[in-house]
This record gives sequence, C-alpha cells and structure tokens, in this order.
Amino acid sequence: EPGPIDLSRYGGRSGIPTFAGAPIALTPEDLIAGDVDVAIVGAPLNMGSGWRGAQHGPLALRLIGRVGGNDQYTQISPSRELNIVDYGDIAIDQDSTERSMQHVREIVREIAETGAVPFIVGGDHSLEYPNVAALVDVYGEDNLSVIHFDAHYDVGRDRAHFIDHGQPIYRLLADGHIKGGDYIQVGLRSGSPSESGYKWMREQGFKYHSMAEVERYGWDYVLERILSEAKADGRKLHISFDVDVLDPSYIAGTGTPVSGGLTPREAIPIIRKLCAQQEVVGFDIVEIAPEIDPTYVTNLHSAAIVQACLIGVSMRK
Amino acid sequence: EPGPIDLSRYGGRSGIPTFAGAPIALTPEDLIAGDVDVAIVGAPLNMGSGWRGAQHGPLALRLIGRVGGNDQYTQISPSRELNIVDYGDIAIDQDSTERSMQHVREIVREIAETGAVPFIVGGDHSLEYPNVAALVDVYGEDNLSVIHFDAHYDVGRDRAHFIDHGQPIYRLLADGHIKGGDYIQVGLRSGSPSESGYKWMREQGFKYHSMAEVERYGWDYVLERILSEAKADGRKLHISFDVDVLDPSYIAGTGTPVSGGLTPREAIPIIRKLCAQQEVVGFDIVEIAPEIDPTYVTNLHSAAIVQACLIGVSMRK
Amino acid sequence: EPGPIDLSRYGGRSGIPTFAGAPIALTPEDLIAGDVDVAIVGAPLNMGSGWRGAQHGPLALRLIGRVGGNDQYTQISPSRELNIVDYGDIAIDQDSTERSMQHVREIVREIAETGAVPFIVGGDHSLEYPNVAALVDVYGEDNLSVIHFDAHYDVGRDRAHFIDHGQPIYRLLADGHIKGGDYIQVGLRSGSPSESGYKWMREQGFKYHSMAEVERYGWDYVLERILSEAKADGRKLHISFDVDVLDPSYIAGTGTPVSGGLTPREAIPIIRKLCAQQEVVGFDIVEIAPEIDPTYVTNLHSAAIVQACLIGVSMRK
Amino acid sequence: EPGPIDLSRYGGRSGIPTFAGAPIALTPEDLIAGDVDVAIVGAPLNMGSGWRGAQHGPLALRLIGRVGGNDQYTQISPSRELNIVDYGDIAIDQDSTERSMQHVREIVREIAETGAVPFIVGGDHSLEYPNVAALVDVYGEDNLSVIHFDAHYDVGRDRAHFIDHGQPIYRLLADGHIKGGDYIQVGLRSGSPSESGYKWMREQGFKYHSMAEVERYGWDYVLERILSEAKADGRKLHISFDVDVLDPSYIAGTGTPVSGGLTPREAIPIIRKLCAQQEVVGFDIVEIAPEIDPTYVTNLHSAAIVQACLIGVSMRK
Amino acid sequence: EPGPIDLSRYGGRSGIPTFAGAPIALTPEDLIAGDVDVAIVGAPLNMGSGWRGAQHGPLALRLIGRVGGNDQYTQISPSRELNIVDYGDIAIDQDSTERSMQHVREIVREIAETGAVPFIVGGDHSLEYPNVAALVDVYGEDNLSVIHFDAHYDVGRDRAHFIDHGQPIYRLLADGHIKGGDYIQVGLRSGSPSESGYKWMREQGFKYHSMAEVERYGWDYVLERILSEAKADGRKLHISFDVDVLDPSYIAGTGTPVSGGLTPREAIPIIRKLCAQQEVVGFDIVEIAPEIDPTYVTNLHSAAIVQACLIGVSMRK
Amino acid sequence: EPGPIDLSRYGGRSGIPTFAGAPIALTPEDLIAGDVDVAIVGAPLNMGSGWRGAQHGPLALRLIGRVGGNDQYTQISPSRELNIVDYGDIAIDQDSTERSMQHVREIVREIAETGAVPFIVGGDHSLEYPNVAALVDVYGEDNLSVIHFDAHYDVGRDRAHFIDHGQPIYRLLADGHIKGGDYIQVGLRSGSPSESGYKWMREQGFKYHSMAEVERYGWDYVLERILSEAKADGRKLHISFDVDVLDPSYIAGTGTPVSGGLTPREAIPIIRKLCAQQEVVGFDIVEIAPEIDPTYVTNLHSAAIVQACLIGVSMRK
Repeated sequence: EPGPIDLSRYGGRSGIPTFAGAPIALTPEDLIAGDVDVAIVGAPLNMGSGWRGAQHGPLALRLIGRVGGNDQYTQISPSRELNIVDYGDIAIDQDSTERSMQHVREIVREIAETGAVPFIVGGDHSLEYPNVAALVDVYGEDNLSVIHFDAHYDVGRDRAHFIDHGQPIYRLLADGHIKGGDYIQVGLRSGSPSESGYKWMREQGFKYHSMAEVERYGWDYVLERILSEAKADGRKLHISFDVDVLDPSYIAGTGTPVSGGLTPREAIPIIRKLCAQQEVVGFDIVEIAPEIDPTYVTNLHSAAIVQACLIGVSMRK
Repeated sequence: EPGPIDLSRYGGRSGIPTFAGAPIALTPEDLIAGDVDVAIVGAPLNMGSGWRGAQHGPLALRLIGRVGGNDQYTQISPSRELNIVDYGDIAIDQDSTERSMQHVREIVREIAETGAVPFIVGGDHSLEYPNVAALVDVYGEDNLSVIHFDAHYDVGRDRAHFIDHGQPIYRLLADGHIKGGDYIQVGLRSGSPSESGYKWMREQGFKYHSMAEVERYGWDYVLERILSEAKADGRKLHISFDVDVLDPSYIAGTGTPVSGGLTPREAIPIIRKLCAQQEVVGFDIVEIAPEIDPTYVTNLHSAAIVQACLIGVSMRK
Repeated sequence: EPGPIDLSRYGGRSGIPTFAGAPIALTPEDLIAGDVDVAIVGAPLNMGSGWRGAQHGPLALRLIGRVGGNDQYTQISPSRELNIVDYGDIAIDQDSTERSMQHVREIVREIAETGAVPFIVGGDHSLEYPNVAALVDVYGEDNLSVIHFDAHYDVGRDRAHFIDHGQPIYRLLADGHIKGGDYIQVGLRSGSPSESGYKWMREQGFKYHSMAEVERYGWDYVLERILSEAKADGRKLHISFDVDVLDPSYIAGTGTPVSGGLTPREAIPIIRKLCAQQEVVGFDIVEIAPEIDPTYVTNLHSAAIVQACLIGVSMRK
Repeated sequence: EPGPIDLSRYGGRSGIPTFAGAPIALTPEDLIAGDVDVAIVGAPLNMGSGWRGAQHGPLALRLIGRVGGNDQYTQISPSRELNIVDYGDIAIDQDSTERSMQHVREIVREIAETGAVPFIVGGDHSLEYPNVAALVDVYGEDNLSVIHFDAHYDVGRDRAHFIDHGQPIYRLLADGHIKGGDYIQVGLRSGSPSESGYKWMREQGFKYHSMAEVERYGWDYVLERILSEAKADGRKLHISFDVDVLDPSYIAGTGTPVSGGLTPREAIPIIRKLCAQQEVVGFDIVEIAPEIDPTYVTNLHSAAIVQACLIGVSMRK
Repeated sequence: EPGPIDLSRYGGRSGIPTFAGAPIALTPEDLIAGDVDVAIVGAPLNMGSGWRGAQHGPLALRLIGRVGGNDQYTQISPSRELNIVDYGDIAIDQDSTERSMQHVREIVREIAETGAVPFIVGGDHSLEYPNVAALVDVYGEDNLSVIHFDAHYDVGRDRAHFIDHGQPIYRLLADGHIKGGDYIQVGLRSGSPSESGYKWMREQGFKYHSMAEVERYGWDYVLERILSEAKADGRKLHISFDVDVLDPSYIAGTGTPVSGGLTPREAIPIIRKLCAQQEVVGFDIVEIAPEIDPTYVTNLHSAAIVQACLIGVSMRK
Repeated sequence: EPGPIDLSRYGGRSGIPTFAGAPIALTPEDLIAGDVDVAIVGAPLNMGSGWRGAQHGPLALRLIGRVGGNDQYTQISPSRELNIVDYGDIAIDQDSTERSMQHVREIVREIAETGAVPFIVGGDHSLEYPNVAALVDVYGEDNLSVIHFDAHYDVGRDRAHFIDHGQPIYRLLADGHIKGGDYIQVGLRSGSPSESGYKWMREQGFKYHSMAEVERYGWDYVLERILSEAKADGRKLHISFDVDVLDPSYIAGTGTPVSGGLTPREAIPIIRKLCAQQEVVGFDIVEIAPEIDPTYVTNLHSAAIVQACLIGVSMRK
C-alpha cells in the first residue's frame, strides 16, 4: 500500500542517509498517501564543462543531514511542521543533457501535481529549465515568478546545444514557458552578461541585482529591494539557487566559481525571508560539487540554504 | 507485511545509498520473509584512541558501491547468487564501548538466528567481541573458528576498561566464549605482543602469522599455511578483518596504522579463498576511518575485501 | 630544583614545540618558583560524538606557534609582559569522559592555587565542567562569571551519561558549582535550545546572545551589550571558547560545525577586550580538531584567539 | 614560416608549461618543417560518467614535466634522440562525445600523415575510437595491432549512445576499422566482461590477459606472454593506456578505479619493452583525472608511462 | 620577426596555459612590435623561510585563467582594451635571493623601458626590491609612489643577509632608490613593526594603515583615506600586493599568514579604484603558494586581484 | 647539573612531542652524563629547489612517535635497550645552505665525540656533506663507509654553488673527506648520472645499485649483494637515507620524487640488517616534506626506517 517508507530503527536514523533524515517516497501515490508537503529529489546531472562533480550534490546533501532540525531564530523544526520525504534520484543520461530534460520535467511535474513542493538538489544548472517548465505545466503561465541566485546570468543565447548549464533561462524564454519579466536575478558577477546581454535582458523585462550593485549600495539596501520586488507581484515563487552565488571562500565545492560573492550570513536570511514571505512552489539548489572541497564546508552551507527555505515554508503553515 | 524493502526506481538504484545497492531489512521477520543469505549491517562504534573516525566506516561502504557486482576471476555476481540486504546500522552509545556491546551482540545474534550470515561493517575492533559472542550464542561453543586479520593482536590483558579496541579477543577468552586454539591471527606487526604476550598466546593455543614470518618465508608460503590450518578443523568460520592489516600505503584511512603490511593483491585472494573453502557464518570489517584518507582508495580496497568474501560465499552455493 | 625548564638553544626555539614557545613546567612547585602568570595546559579529551579529532587540539596549538609575540594594535608582547609556561598535557582516559573529569579538575586547581591563570587547550567541551569547578574550588562560589562562546548552548538536561560535550554547563549547575545567572552565552545557533530550553535558561538567569540577535541588530550592537553585561558584575571571569562559535568557513577543523557563525574579525577583538576589561582567572579553547582542516587556517585563528586573551591579560599588568 | 616554436628563454624553460618541455607546433606544416618524430597532443574530453575530471589530464602532464629526460636504464634522453613537439590541445565539445570524435580523428590523422607518431593525452577512453580510426586511415586496414591496457574491456555492446568511454573498441569493430584479432587487452579486472562477453571476445579473436591470470601465474609469466604475442604479428602498433590499469593505490586520480591492479614497477618496463620491440605508430594515455588525487603521485606515474614509451621509441632510432 | 607569438588554435586557447590566455613575448623587441600595454611576467623566487611554495605562484596564475575577461561592474574586458602578453618567467637562482635580484631588475626594466607596464607574478616578497628599483631606473627618483598591501611591513633592518622576503622596503631605502615618504602600507597586522619600528617609519615619512585602524574606524573610512593619500601626490604608482594582506580564510595558500586580514570584497574594489585613479607603471602580486591550499580558492582570489588592476588600467585608456 | 631532561608526567609522555618520546639533551655534557647511545637531532634545512618543505621533517618525526617501541620480529624495544635523547634542532640559515654547513658539522661532531651515534633528521640532502665530514673528523679518514639510499646520485659536479642538495657527495670527495670507494649507492633511477657520470663514478671506485639492476635481477639478489659489499670492508658505517629512494606511492611527501622506487617492505628489512650487521656511527634521513602528503603515510614509513636502524643498533648491544 502506498505511503512514505520509514527507514528508521529505534525511532531514529538507521544509517541509511536520506534528505533531512526523511522517509522515502518513490511514487506520486506515496506522496498523496503521506500528505506530503515537501518532496526533496536528487537530480545528479553533471554536464557542466568547468570543474565537474555536480553529480554528487544529492549524495552530499543526504549525508550532511542538518536540514530538518530546529531553528534558533524562529524556533521552528521543519521536520515537525512539514511532511517531508526523500523522493530518491531522477534518472539522468550523463552523456546528454538534452535527453535528460524531459524526464526531469516529468518527475518534477508529478511531484507538483500532488500539491507537494519539489525541492530539487542538483546537479548542474541546466536543471532550471525542466524545473521551471514543470511548474508552469502545473500552475499555468503568468502564475509563477523565479528568483535566480547565481554568479552567472545563465541566459546564453548562442550556444552549440539545445540546452546546457549556461542557458537554462534563455531556453525557458525561447520555448515560451516564462517571460523575462518573471525573473529576478541576484548575485551576478561573472564575465557575462556583456553590455548587449544586459540590454537584451532589460528589453525582456528582467530584474537583476549584480554584486556591483552590492558593492555600491551595500547588501542591506539590495536585500530590501529584492524582497520588495518579489513581494510586489505576489505570485507563486520558484527559487533557483546556484551555490556559486556565494563566494568561493565559502563554497569551494562548485565548478564555475567567481571571486567576490555573497557570504552565508547574507544568503541564509534572504532565503528564509523569501520562503516565508511568498508561496514557494519550487526550489532548486544546484552546482554543489562536493569532491572539489576537501572539507565539509560546502555541504554545510548548502544544507543551511535548504533549511532556510524549509523554515520559511514552515512559517506559513 | 515483512520482507526486504526495495528502494530502487527504474529497477536500478535511486540515489539512496545502501550496502551493495541491496534492499533494506530492519527486522528478523524481514530476513526470514526474504530468505536472506547475507545481511550487511553497520556498527558505527568509534572509541579507539588513535586517529578516530571509524564511526563513518558504514557510510563509506554504502557510498562506494562496488561489492555485489560480477567478479572476473570467478564470473560470479554475488548480488545475483545471494539474497543480500542492508540491515541498517546498530545503535551505538558513542560515550561507552561497554554499554554498546550487549546491543551489538543482540542484533548480530538475531541475524544469525535466521540463518543469514551477518557481515558487520565497523566501527572499531572492539566489535569483534560482540560479533563472535553472538555467533557462539547461535552455533554453540567449539563449533566456531575465527581468523583475525590485523596489524595488532588485540589480546590486551591489562586494560583499564572492560572492553576497548585493543582487547576484544582477550575479553572473548576471559568470558569463556571461545578458546585461543580457535583463533588464527594474520598480519601481526605492531609493538605488541611482547615476548611474554607471545608466550601466553602459545599457551592458549593461538595460531598466528606475523609479518616477520612473511618477510622470512614470503607471502605465498604463509598463504598456504593459513589456508591449511583453516581447513584442518573444518568448522564454521568467522573472519574479522581489520583494514590496518593492509599497509597504510593502501589504507591511509585507519586509526592505528603500522608500516609494513599486506598489499591488496595479497589480501583479496586469501579472503576469497577462505570464504570459498569454508562455511563462513560471520564476517566483520573494522577500523575504516574514511575521513583520514583524502582519496577514495581506502574505501575501494575495503569494498574489494567485502566483495571477495561475498564471492567466496557465492561459490559454495 | 623547581622552576620552568627552558628548552631553547641559542636563546631561541630548538625545535621542540611548546605552547607559545614557552618554557615547560610540570609541577606546582615549578609554577611558584617561576612566578608564573599563565600556565597553558593541554587536555586532549576526545569523546564528542561528531567528527572527532579534538584530541589533537593541544598539539595543533603547540605547532602553530604564533601566540606570545608582539601585537600591532596594543604594541604588547605577552611573552615579554607575562611569565608563561607550557604545563604539558593532562592525562585523559579516552574511553570515559566521566573518569577524566576529576583529574582535569585537580590539575586546573593546582595551577590556579599558585595564582597562575590556567589556559586549557582542549579537547572537547566537556572540559568546561572540570575547568569551572576547579576555579570555584579556588575562588569560591559567587565570585566567578563565565562567558561561553559557542554555537551550542551545552546545557543538555536529559543525557544518557553523567557528563559529555553537550552538557557541561548543566552539570555545573546540577552539581551546584555555579548558577545560571553567572553565565553569558554568545553565538548560539545550533538546533538547541528549543523553546522550553530557552524558558528554563531564562528561569535560571542565563544571559545569552544568539546569532539571531546578531542578524537582527548587527554585531557592533551585540558586542557592546556583551561587554556591558560582563562589566556589570565586575567579578573574576572564566572564558570558555568553543571554536565552533566561528563560522565553519573559518574553522573547518571542528567536530560539530554550524553554518552562520562569527568571523575572526568579530571574535578576536571581543576576546581581547574582555580579557583587558576584567580579571580573567581561567580561559579554555576547545573543539579544535585539526585533522579535519587540510589547511592551517583553523589552527591559525585558534592561536589568534588565545593570543587575543594573552594580550588582554598583559594590558592589565 | 612554419616550424616548431621554441618558447624557451636562456636555452631553458621559460615558465610556460609544454609537454616534455618541448617546442610548440600547431599545424602539419610545423611538423614537417621540424622533421618531428613525436607530436604530443592533448584531448581534454571528459564525458565519462564516474568521478569526472579527465579533461585536466593534458594540463597535468604538461605541468609534471619529467618525460623527455635521461633514463638510467638505457642511458637514453628522448628529448635528445627525438624531435618532440607539443601539438597543443584538440577542440572538444564537452557536451557531446559523439560530436568530438570526428575532429579528434582529423587531428590525429594529420599528425600521422606527416610521419610523426601521435601521443594523445586524454581525456577519457572514448578517445581510443578516433585515435585508432585515424591510424587505420593512414596505415590501412590489417596493418595495425592495438594493445589496450585497462581495468575495463571497453567493448560495451548495448550502450545508449553511439560512443562513450565504455565502448570505443566495440565501435571500432562495428564500424569495421579493426578486428578483434588485432587486439591484446591487459589488466582486465572490472565487473565486465561477463561470461557471454568473454565468449564474444574469443569469437572475435581478442587476446586478453586479466588480473585473474596474473594472480594465478604471476606477472613475470604474463609479461612474457604479452611480449611474445605482440611480437608474433610484427605489425605497426598502437598502445592505448588507461591509467586505471594501475591499482588505485598508485593512480588515485582516475574516474573508474578498480582495486587489484598493476604496480608502476610492473607497468613501466612492459611499456618500455613494447615500444622498443615494435614500431609504435600511436600511443594514448587516458583517464588521468588529476584533481581526484591530492598528491602529485598520479601525474608522476602517468608521466613515467609516457616516458617509458618515448625511451622505447628512441631505442629503435 | 619580432612580435607576440599567438599559441591559440581555432582562435581560442590551445591548451598551453599563459597568463590571461595572452600571446607570448620573450624579448623587448616583441613588446615594441606588439605595442604591448601590459607584460605579465613570472618570477618564481622561493626563499621565504615560512611554509614555502611561492615558486609555483606564476604557474598557478597561468592555470587559473580568469584575468582578461569582461568585468560586470565596468563592462570592460582588459584583453580587448589592452595588448597583454605573457612574458614568460625570469630565471631565478633558488639557492640565493641576492644573486637573483639583479637579473629580475634587468627584466623588469627592459619591460618598462618599452612603455609596457610590468605585472610581476611572484615568487616571494623580496621581489619588491628589484621591481621598484627597476621602475626608478626608468622613471627616475621622486617620480614614483608605492602602495604596499601586506600583513607585514617588510622593513626589517637587522637581517643576516643583504636581501630576503622581510626587508625589501628597507633595502630600497638603504640603497637610495626611494624614500619612506613615497610609501603607503596597507593591512599591517603581524608582530612587526614594534614601537621603535613604527617610530622609525614615521621619521622616514611612511604612511600606513594597519588592521588596528580598520578595527577601530571600519574599512570604508580607511579605504577613503588610502585613496585620498594616493591621489594627493599624483605620481606614477607601483602596487605591491602580498596576498597575505587577505585573511588566511580566503588565501590559505601563502607562506606567512596572519589572522585578521582583509576580505576579497574589501581588496578587489580598492585595487580597481587605485589602478583607475592613477597611472600605474608597475604591479606585483607575491607570496602565492598554491600547493598549501588544497582548493583553487587562493588562485581564484589572486587572479581577481590581478584582473581588478587590469580593469583599472583599461578604464584610463 | 647536566643530563637528559625528562619531560614526561605520570611516567609517560606529557604532550610535548620529542623524537621517540625521548628525554631532551641540549649539550654534550648532557650526553655524557646520560651515557647516551643515540642522539636524534633535527636539521630543518630547506634549500632544495623542487617542491620544498623539507624543513618540517624534524617536526613530522617528533609527531609520529612510533620509533622506540617494541619490534615484533626481533622482540627488541630500542627505547629499553638504548639511551636515546632528542637533541633538539640545529640552527639553520634558511637563506644560505653554505652558511649552514659548518654549524651542522660542529653539532654532529660534538655528538659523535661523546660516543653517541648521531641520527640526523633533515632537512634536505645537502646535510650529507656536514654529517659525513663530522664523522670523518671524529673517526678519521679511511675508517668510514657510507651507504647512500636515494633516487638520485647526488654527485653533481658542475653546480653554481659550493653546496646544494644535488652535490653533497661530490663536495665530500672534492674536499677530500672521503673517497668514491667508500660509497655504496642504492636505488638510483633519476635522470642522472649520465653515461659520463657513471664513468666518473666507476673511476672513483663507487659501488652502486640502480633500480635498473633491481628490475633485471630482482630485489632479493640486489639486497644480498649490498649486504655483502657492506660487510666486506667491515668499517664503521654511516647511512644516508633519502626518503625518495622509496616510490612516491609510499612517500608522497618529498620534494624530488621519481617513479619506480623501493617499497617499504624492501627498504625496512635492509636498513635493519645493515644496522645490525655493522657498527653504525651515523644515520641521516632526509627530504621528508610532510606538507606535500595530506595523509600521515610519509611520516609513518619514515619513522619505520628510523626504527629499523634503532633496532639494528640495539641488536648489537
């Protein structure tokens, strides 16, 4: 009979690592039977062309544990407030990003259709494409905003392939799933976009907050602007969090790092506030490449970001 | 209804790491319902006083994967020949080895009572005490031999505590579970035993093969002697494999390493041969401390040792 | 004849690493004969159940060197202002925290009785129990305040053992050595305390400053509040500094890290100011687990914390 | 005017790392003008699905240096006996192995057509496909033998894609470039081939020497058999050396390691002997993934393998 | 015929790593023929007596790449605005700093004499001596200011040797190349200078900004003071950037780290602003010791510093 | 009053690391008063031009501990049979190898003059020069043989400096301290010597055993030849052990590694046998560069080599 499978012995964990120490679900029926609020699912896609290793991101987050426990600030334990499950990993064709897209979209959609919020743990950032497309499938066009945290703008318009980790947003726009005006980008500081790229983005209606803006006005000011912009449209929200939005000092384990990024003490609160302020219907964290960081620091901060959103979601219950 | 729980999606692994990629069982009823041949169970005990970290041994072996697949030499796939399960981890009191002993013994016994062979993944070497005691509980005195692979003899007789990682064999003898004559030790080369220690061991009937013997006569000769001695009594067999029997060049991830140990190409065949030659009713691999080795080499060789025994066990089917 | 033993050759260090490059003392008579101001002593206790390794903390600080030299800000060289010694390591029973407590307390007391300030280098945080108890033995009840820097509150009230690294403060209160009102906690951000825990702490009179407070009001504000509170009672002071109060980005080498902690540029000044503002009669730095950090960064910041307090102590001379 | 470009200053290296410290050539005209014997070329292809990172293999070998210097055994300096150049890297489409194949084949062919021996530094093992195809383009069918050193047989017959790192040999046969009987495989020990795989290989005429054979008969015996078999047909030879034929203890930096492999002292002499015994017209070394090995050991042994072949080639001059 | 040598194939990089992916020049004639604006040159000097390894700094920066690309803030691509070359490495006598000084000075001078700006990548900080001396050779006394970013003041006056990494500034003054008043020091926080050292520096007219000043007044205030002081004299500027001015949390790969340093988000903007505000005629970055940092973080931040100055230089074009 | 200073508390180690856990002696008077058999002294010289770091060799061996304890093979505990002391470190001028030579020679001579055997822990291999010179000072010409274990022959004859790590043997011959015929070299396999180098060595009467000889005849044969040659002259013996004689797989922590070296199970027995067979009057172990090896394996094998000689020395008592 369907429902989440509890792997714990003695009422605690039994050594088999799952996201948030949660029970496991493998089918939509399990989600429905378990009245699941959040289904965390791995998508070990690894086709980025930098220092690869993003395929082990899901494993890293299963191992680190710390995402469902009590939060000092809010005195909320997501694991107690929410029905959370580990929905396993999505099958990936590691030899073709393009072939992986449709199946990721199907799984994310089947989660969302049950009313659960999919938390996708990547994997590289090409995942933003099927994740957002799936949510639009379920919630309809013009009902979704996306906040994209990233050192890179990921709107590459002249790429050799249909999809790769540098163009998910462009592909979403080109395929008509979403509009530039539905997007807020935060933390941009890589070589791109160029001036013409920025021009195109402005024409498309993108809102963005680069690290240049943070250097000039300070994070507190930028934080408030982002919260206001996000609140203004009041729509359902997807957050796509590329861990390289953080400075490589904090996230050494990622494939295309850029100096000059956010600190954890800047990133954690904004995620918690966004997830508490608005109805989050999807969340992805991508580009965790744990083997590049010989310490556990990358995994720890990544988990804190996931937990921050879980806390926010819990606060709305 | 009882039985192993299959976590695979698409007929393959779904991202949740288990020993040998096997289904999960959490109760003896699961083992019986699944007609389980081998139950691999973690025992993350970590009280050794060297460079600690043995508590992560079970996780390391769940992650490395490679233990149930096809073997070139024998053309046997243990996962196909045997019903293998991941029996989860045993609860450990990390603040007291002594308090952990009884519960480990209970779980190992409950596995063995179903007829399944417990493969215990440590954790430190104090586990040899409850493992062997549990097997004697099930199979009776005088029906079990033990082969102890280790750089250390683990027969400390004057320790401050009832049990620790340096005295499991002494404790087994002192408590009357087994006799010195039931033991073969392989790979000894640490500071102990002293001359008086060796004298006592000979009085107790221990058989042993130190690295000094290997230096003098070569491994091929020693290998044959061990196989002959093991075969001679024809009894049921428990193998206790401390990974530090291997040279630290191959197993950097262990807490009390000693220079001058075996190579993987010496250790893997002897384990396969022993497990094929005799009826193995228990197997433990201990002192894997993965975080001390910044590569995956320790985990890989450890998995190869476990697989070697699974192949041997399969060959008898 | 008693007195510190100088191991230097050529008037400099001779290769044998000691705390602060200081002479060695092994008995209270040595401390008295040398008119010693500060005795730095190692307590390599390692029973925490996270990623262990705290037993090598004393070694790490002996090796890193950089404590005792000139400070730019104050133009003070602690090694010149103070008679500092390395008091060696305290014997620890690595198989039982409980059995280690009494002996640590004896050694800390024998240092304090000579008038020297014990600087205890851990080892895990269960050390706070014997350290504070010993100081109360010497200075009497109601004469001591403690400032506890830590990501964790360490007031666990329902633990399986008499003492472990999660409950030293509770044990101190339960045994009547000190009161909740004698405590200021700084940097709390782990899962505990829960709401009921906070309620209990407030009932006991604890003062505390969580990272939630820092997020809301900023560090400058919190810093001033802590200095004021500490100054208000004007009593002798013990500082217990768990390095995990710093963010894991700065202190990767610790066993129970929590994202979102202090930076070195926040922590170093507050320690210097506290040690200059009040009469420090004890200082401990705990949970340094150097092997978890493949760089020297953990050790370097840890040494800077110790030096900051030595500078403060020097400023009062 | 064409010809190798010497980047050295002061007659030595000037800091810009090239293969073997050699001059650079970028066109076939450069090779002809320089009467080049050996052109070392990088092919940073990285589509294997294990622990990736093979794309940095060419860089690793440029950095390690040690491949053209004097050899003690033979008193030969390849850099003195041979005109060696660094031919730069071949452009790779990191999002599609299939699309990269044709261009690699073109570049290898353009090298071979000048009479120079291409030494290809991978990159993953799918490179064996274009490398061998290019040599057949130049030297004609039935004029080439290949010795494949690898833990894996790389004859996958039922793969989802046209080409990947597990099937280059199958693809070569399927496309009619070469026959099974032209192949000698050395060091096999992974899960594959299964019994049916071996049967198929025997039907195709493959010669192979697994580690099971080495376990049974010893390396000296197997070494002689390989040399005899290779000598028997007397044809031009391509060597495809996957570094995972070595045990992971020696080559931690590779993506699909298997326990129980060759040692450097077994592998280096056989390569030197093969390259001296027969006319080598192509050589590739693949699956070096330097970032997985935190030491330089992987790179050092890889360089020693390249040098061993250069020495052999020099001995025939 | 002279001129920069372009090693790119397909119009892109061909695998041979150069500074900023730039063409190579090896003689002054190449610089003149190529109308070169910036010549980046390696000086792999490694005689510091801490944790050595600075000799691999040039290699590290050649490998990391990211220094000529587009900058988000300014929308400038240095590689497009400036003619940049990799001028190779300067020959160093690794057994004598003193013997290396004259040749470094010659090469830096030969670059500067063509009108190109030398960017010297060290190597240890003794390089500041020949770098500044060479610039004075070309531009004359009293025409040059130097800003020295460093945790250390490098004005050691009582050293055993003519030159070492702790006294380049003293040697410059003692030899009459420059005056104390021409110097601004930023980030001082090591044990030196003592009070007498500061007194001497003030007598010589040095301007300096220690981390104590930053602690007291905040970075924004100090930043403005430095920019003002630098602007006040309006002379040509050399920047000597020791990476240990950054906190070891960000630059683990350096030999004499000191806790409590700048962050990348403080350092990058000041470098960009200085290089835009004034005519920079020389720049050195020293004490990058990449092997001490097992991540790429040290190299990444170092590259960002170099890029920040290249951007500033570009802004003046 | 003179004599070794015992730093132990409770009759055991007290946390201050010394060689072999031995008492400390700082003057010849201490050695005489303590009737010292073996004085282990550090010489942290670090001027090699490869991957530096040999200056931390003495520290590494003080930390690893395991050198005075019981040996299984011989049942001898060097610490019980011999009076061993830690003689501290010798002062080194890290900016000039040449200036360091005379002082090292003085200290080694002052040890040998008391009748104690100096065990010098380097530091780089230029130390062989003062070590051997000092022993000749004490024991006279023609009374000493030297066995040099090394991948390199260290007889560089055309170097820029009076002394460096590539020419200690040449310098000894050139200065007339010893003759080529007094030397046995073991393990040679680097690029040098060339044919002319070998010719010169043969003219000088050197005996040598390269790895080429080991490849051709096997280690057992070479081992016996070395023991015979060493025994033949029956003179006092100095052993100079460069850890790079071992393969880099076992000793990653060294500065000029060469693939294809000895294994620990080859090296440890020959050292024990040599030290038991002949009167050893000096021993040095050099080129341990611990920070290059992220594991403890280099240190462990290095300690095993030192212990092997201590055991041999003990066997003659």
